[in-house]
Amino acid sequence: MTYCLAIALDEGLVFCSDSRTNAGPDRVSTYSKMHRFCVPHDRSLVILTAGNLATSQAVIAQLQRDIEEDNDFNIFKARYVSDVADYLGELSLAEQAKYAKKGGPNAGFSPSASFILGGQIKGQQPELYMVYPEGNHITASDLYPYLQIGETKYGKPILDRIIRPHTPVETAMRCALVSIDSTMRSNATVGPPLECLFYEKDSLQPYNRYIMLEENHPYLARLRQSWDDNIRMAFDNLPPLSDVFAAAE
Amino acid sequence: MTYCLAIALDEGLVFCSDSRTNAGPDRVSTYSKMHRFCVPHDRSLVILTAGNLATSQAVIAQLQRDIEEDNDFNIFKARYVSDVADYLGELSLAEQAKYAKKGGPNAGFSPSASFILGGQIKGQQPELYMVYPEGNHITASDLYPYLQIGETKYGKPILDRIIRPHTPVETAMRCALVSIDSTMRSNATVGPPLECLFYEKDSLQPYNRYIMLEENHPYLARLRQSWDDNIRMAFDNLPPLSDVFAAAE
Repeated sequence: MTYCLAIALDEGLVFCSDSRTNAGPDRVSTYSKMHRFCVPHDRSLVILTAGNLATSQAVIAQLQRDIEEDNDFNIFKARYVSDVADYLGELSLAEQAKYAKKGGPNAGFSPSASFILGGQIKGQQPELYMVYPEGNHITASDLYPYLQIGETKYGKPILDRIIRPHTPVETAMRCALVSIDSTMRSNATVGPPLECLFYEKDSLQPYNRYIMLEENHPYLARLRQSWDDNIRMAFDNLPPLSDVFAAAE
Repeated sequence: MTYCLAIALDEGLVFCSDSRTNAGPDRVSTYSKMHRFCVPHDRSLVILTAGNLATSQAVIAQLQRDIEEDNDFNIFKARYVSDVADYLGELSLAEQAKYAKKGGPNAGFSPSASFILGGQIKGQQPELYMVYPEGNHITASDLYPYLQIGETKYGKPILDRIIRPHTPVETAMRCALVSIDSTMRSNATVGPPLECLFYEKDSLQPYNRYIMLEENHPYLARLRQSWDDNIRMAFDNLPPLSDVFAAAE
């Protein structure tokens, strides 16, 4: 499993991902799921991946090969981010189709993968897309401007409470890390290092802020302990249920 | 969907459930998912249900019919709570088997259901079981003594942080309500009224505390607002990420 998310702020885009992959509990590895494609002053794009690692690696490899071979359509020539999203969906579907035979040694196996694609091409606004395993894609909502792939549920409530388009960059990056950290606590197949990147609108550079937090990074330990303490305090300060019992008696 | 949970405390058992059912977004109804079976001074049992409503209603109806017809095995005669859990699993499997034909009008339809069963029979300790759709069952963990059925992920992190065997009853009941309320926020198919019941160890009575919170109950509104405010404060008080950026520069 994996958990990745991206946030579309008024100031730019935030991308955050874990790095754990597993093919069964005894085949746990570490792979970055954040892939950057940049032509400075022209375009800056980031792709996050979840799902079958063979599928997502094949898709990313093809995107890179298209650039090296200077193919008619490639991520460095595309006119719109949405064209890249379409192409990503096509590549993903084609790759899945190779392995999606039913039954036999493939029974119970799924080659499906999901992607988040975001960034900016010169002359356009920054954009964010989620590409489904089925190949189609959606953008983030205006009011709750984030997208998630992988193990999304544990880390969703905090995003709904905190993330809005005008949320400051530092707050949004911190919220993304809390969202992933909460998920790590509940699902052992999501794990560090965590990567978090901020792309500033109209900068057309690879990124403006980037951090990688390894398991033993002191900030990650402080964040975790502080969140645990603060949540307990938040809980202890809720109105006591004894009020309801007293009223009923 | 549904969300129900139960907690095994040193002092007794807590059960909590929502009341929304849906068969598609235009077939939303309200049904209690908490079923009580009590012979005062002899036994007190509670069953929570999730999954296909037809299956769970048929199972509960059969348990009641067994009592009315004074069948050889019934919930009022069972020697151990685990025997009831076994029987519940058998009834559930038999009911599902009637409708589990593949393809045709049943394609995409699942008759599966899950149950939480808990309570105490005279001379035994209080016990808690989760009965899977496959008919087998597990008990709660000693360290994290809760069980969940239905839409379980959104509401799990707060249980992991707060619930331990020695947690006071009022805290555990409040935590169960927060867990369900967080789930309602993220999944529209979980909804009020919420029911929360406490069974005190060795009381052998139907319950020692019971509340039902309707949508517009003032406590539910206060709990929700207070939790939202407190979580934001918990988040605002986290160590700022700018520390990390400063250290990197």
